Amino acid sequence: MNNKTILLKKAVSILATSSIVGKKEGMGPLKDDFDLILNDDYFGEKSFEKAEIKILRECINMCKKKANLSDEDIDLALSGDLINQCICSNYALSDFNIPFLGLYGACSTMAEALLIGSLLISSDYYKKIVCSSSSHFCTAEKQFRNPIEYGGQRTPTSQWTVTGGGCVLLSESSSPPYITHITAGRVIDMGICDITNMGACMAPAAFDTVLTHFKTSSFSPSDYDLILTGDLGTLGSSLFIELLEKEGIDISSIHNDTGKMIYDIKKQDAHCGGSGAGCCSSVLCSHIYKKLKKGELNRVLFVATGALMNTMSSQQGLSIPAIAHAVTISNVI
Amino acid sequence: MNNKTILLKKAVSILATSSIVGKKEGMGPLKDDFDLILNDDYFGEKSFEKAEIKILRECINMCKKKANLSDEDIDLALSGDLINQCICSNYALSDFNIPFLGLYGACSTMAEALLIGSLLISSDYYKKIVCSSSSHFCTAEKQFRNPIEYGGQRTPTSQWTVTGGGCVLLSESSSPPYITHITAGRVIDMGICDITNMGACMAPAAFDTVLTHFKTSSFSPSDYDLILTGDLGTLGSSLFIELLEKEGIDISSIHNDTGKMIYDIKKQDAHCGGSGAGCCSSVLCSHIYKKLKKGELNRVLFVATGALMNTMSSQQGLSIPAIAHAVTISNVI
Repeated sequence: MNNKTILLKKAVSILATSSIVGKKEGMGPLKDDFDLILNDDYFGEKSFEKAEIKILRECINMCKKKANLSDEDIDLALSGDLINQCICSNYALSDFNIPFLGLYGACSTMAEALLIGSLLISSDYYKKIVCSSSSHFCTAEKQFRNPIEYGGQRTPTSQWTVTGGGCVLLSESSSPPYITHITAGRVIDMGICDITNMGACMAPAAFDTVLTHFKTSSFSPSDYDLILTGDLGTLGSSLFIELLEKEGIDISSIHNDTGKMIYDIKKQDAHCGGSGAGCCSSVLCSHIYKKLKKGELNRVLFVATGALMNTMSSQQGLSIPAIAHAVTISNVI
Repeated sequence: MNNKTILLKKAVSILATSSIVGKKEGMGPLKDDFDLILNDDYFGEKSFEKAEIKILRECINMCKKKANLSDEDIDLALSGDLINQCICSNYALSDFNIPFLGLYGACSTMAEALLIGSLLISSDYYKKIVCSSSSHFCTAEKQFRNPIEYGGQRTPTSQWTVTGGGCVLLSESSSPPYITHITAGRVIDMGICDITNMGACMAPAAFDTVLTHFKTSSFSPSDYDLILTGDLGTLGSSLFIELLEKEGIDISSIHNDTGKMIYDIKKQDAHCGGSGAGCCSSVLCSHIYKKLKKGELNRVLFVATGALMNTMSSQQGLSIPAIAHAVTISNVI
């Protein structure tokens, strides 16, 4: 069976994390947990793209600083973002003297990076790897929908792309929390064509990966304190839970979604919640990591989901494929 | 030192390769080596993007068939391309039941895939991995420059994006050729802003990675039958050789570049030669692989280079960063 959960040969430590978010995210329920909240989504730059590059760069810098490491101590960088040809990652990494592998998994990129990074560290090829991903509301609107100046109407199923980023420093095993298992996802296309309903596109991919996770690991839902998807939003989360229920797997009491957590959805007019490669990464690298460090959470299944279309594929009538990758983050090995 | 060559714990076999190219490439000097030459660059589809998706999908199908494997026998797919949000890979992989990790390294993607794939197989996490990348002249012109209908003039330093793709099936060690070493590259930005001179942008990255390769491995140039860059073209190749010469490393007699090889540059009006993620992959997976199998080549350093800008970053005045990754492919372990 090619579709399986892998138990790492050695648990891999998350040595440090960092997070930066925009103004709107900094007014949400998780505001006390982020490392830096921007006053202005330009972040002192002249374009939103340059601001997003700076978010990623500063996330990596912060993570290095927290772990008291220099570039030379870090063996590899894994990073991705949503902008055409992943320029935010490419330009951010041009400021570091660290070998770099660019990834594209849309909003699933942080899980993809953690998955590859933990496989490479646990096999003793590398000792320290930085994993990062970002998104920016204004770059993503321009890229995937319309420039914000256009003032396009949002549909009820739409999600709000998070301005933010996160960085995880993976290290050979030293202290908890650890990454212990990984489950790589397949591309799942259920024929959905609505580019304003990412939750519906991605829920089947999250379902497929989580079902695989439980079928091919020793875990059952009760082994987890939290199954954290990112970012299905409110609608996608309901569909995801429903799909698993049909398979006899009830995760309703232990599921949350970073798209639901990052905004006070009603007060902040976020429709179905947050999304973007910076949503799950900024929430994981702040709120969730802190709870793991405090022992308020002890085992989390982090399932990041990505919708794999672009504007052209939609305009050419193709439906929207999606993917989800999962990693188990645990305080116990 | 984080910037280093890694000797794989076990050599990884290249079990099979496949290649598809367009009409122009099929009229070049390597025409006898490709598996399939298209009569029409639409490949029976209604858009160039759909044609490129089909090129990747059929490359993977061909490779599976050559190795007599089904989806279930393949543990992982690694793929990337040049189109916004890597849709060619995403849609191609939606037709397979294989876990998928999307990569973006521009034209360096095939080397990035081989590098990650061989690390993961040699550490016993996976047994069989397909690595693929593609490009298409008409999708790339539209994406990075102008739609072909615009009839833009080409500058003398421009390269011609190859319509084509390649797929490599990596396997636990069985028969030669093997991947034995990998060298991951850093992002190098020398401040070049000319988007019609990719060779000049990428040559310093190739130089940096190859210099690292020789400094941190037991190899000297004389250990190689061929140092194969892809795709610096004619101008970039000269710069690359010159940069190495200044470091006292003479590779002039054993260097070639897939961008120089794929076209009869003068007769086919290809300016500085071929480029695109499908150039180095289609040449590696046809001409070079056949020569390795026949023993006409015994050790090749495959160095794929990528320019990491997009149209927006250039329009916003940013210079063009580049990257190069290298893998050693050898008949002897």
